[in-house]
Amino acid sequence: MLPQALSDVIDALGMLPGVGPKTAERYAYYLFKSSNKISESIASSLSNLHSGVKSCPVTFALIDADMKVSPLYDDPRRDKSTIMVVEEPLDIYAIEQTKSYMGTYHVLGGAISPIDGITPEQLHIGELIKRVNDDNAKEIIIATNPSVEGESTALLLEKMLHEQNPNLKLTRLARGLPLGVDLSYADQITLSAALENRTDL
Amino acid sequence: MLPQALSDVIDALGMLPGVGPKTAERYAYYLFKSSNKISESIASSLSNLHSGVKSCPVTFALIDADMKVSPLYDDPRRDKSTIMVVEEPLDIYAIEQTKSYMGTYHVLGGAISPIDGITPEQLHIGELIKRVNDDNAKEIIIATNPSVEGESTALLLEKMLHEQNPNLKLTRLARGLPLGVDLSYADQITLSAALENRTDL
Repeated sequence: MLPQALSDVIDALGMLPGVGPKTAERYAYYLFKSSNKISESIASSLSNLHSGVKSCPVTFALIDADMKVSPLYDDPRRDKSTIMVVEEPLDIYAIEQTKSYMGTYHVLGGAISPIDGITPEQLHIGELIKRVNDDNAKEIIIATNPSVEGESTALLLEKMLHEQNPNLKLTRLARGLPLGVDLSYADQITLSAALENRTDL
Repeated sequence: MLPQALSDVIDALGMLPGVGPKTAERYAYYLFKSSNKISESIASSLSNLHSGVKSCPVTFALIDADMKVSPLYDDPRRDKSTIMVVEEPLDIYAIEQTKSYMGTYHVLGGAISPIDGITPEQLHIGELIKRVNDDNAKEIIIATNPSVEGESTALLLEKMLHEQNPNLKLTRLARGLPLGVDLSYADQITLSAALENRTDL
């Protein structure tokens, strides 16, 4: 009953994560009411997405298709002996925005999750261990998410990296109160961590 | 720092209503990780959107570009003497899904809103009055939204249609308790309307 072209757009946008039929309808109708330019720029950018982006073969960060390795790895100003291990490529850009890290990155490609069928073999752990040797790494910062999956992955990495080289410094991102959150609203685990990791004044 | 092709997709999707940079990032990364087919179906459906959809010249419903008038108006089984007036084209599909209306529709194209600069002249009111005569309408169901703008539009329509033809039956959708809502959670205006419009058992 809806025009075919409109219902095609609704079906297509409904495939995005967390977008139900009502949201897809809203997006589609907005695009129809707006100038053709918005639809065109979405369509043309999507056509280039898969051909224009690839994974860096060393760090597994996302890079332009015509690059050999990630510029964050290639840059001589960046310290290759410090490697921050993250779950997903976009985590890198969150860290980079802080402008307070000058080491390199390694993307695992997820976290161990038996429910979702993600085993350690599917993550880029072997490549990380190889890099530790190749780049003569001194410190590995484990920056997995503070979730059950992220914590298990961190534990496994700690074990494997320690076995590999007992002198390697292993650290992880601090747990504590996020800025702007009222103490009384913080959850128990975060509060315990904030207390345990309290810093000297 | 993000690959250009990925950041183009993030920028483009960020133009959708209610989509901020983080949501756009999530959509874009999901599309990159998923098969090319999803991006392709979004891109191709969007390319056809503006060329494949137009407004019905009589009812202002959205129709396939190769149709002359809305099939809901053209259908001889539908009662042209009853016209339901809605704000937006997608409202029609919400009503149609109830399968309990067999009249025709008229889309206003919005509601009067001085703040957004929408005046009565920008709505398809003139065309409605013409249809009332042309189709020899007997009943107009005013189905604008239960918002301040929708209510003012309903009042204006009531006045104009009554002036035009004092014998025309004017109705509007009932106000009352929506299904599944606890009485104690209903707002005062809805509750007052439900009490005022109470039905005999």
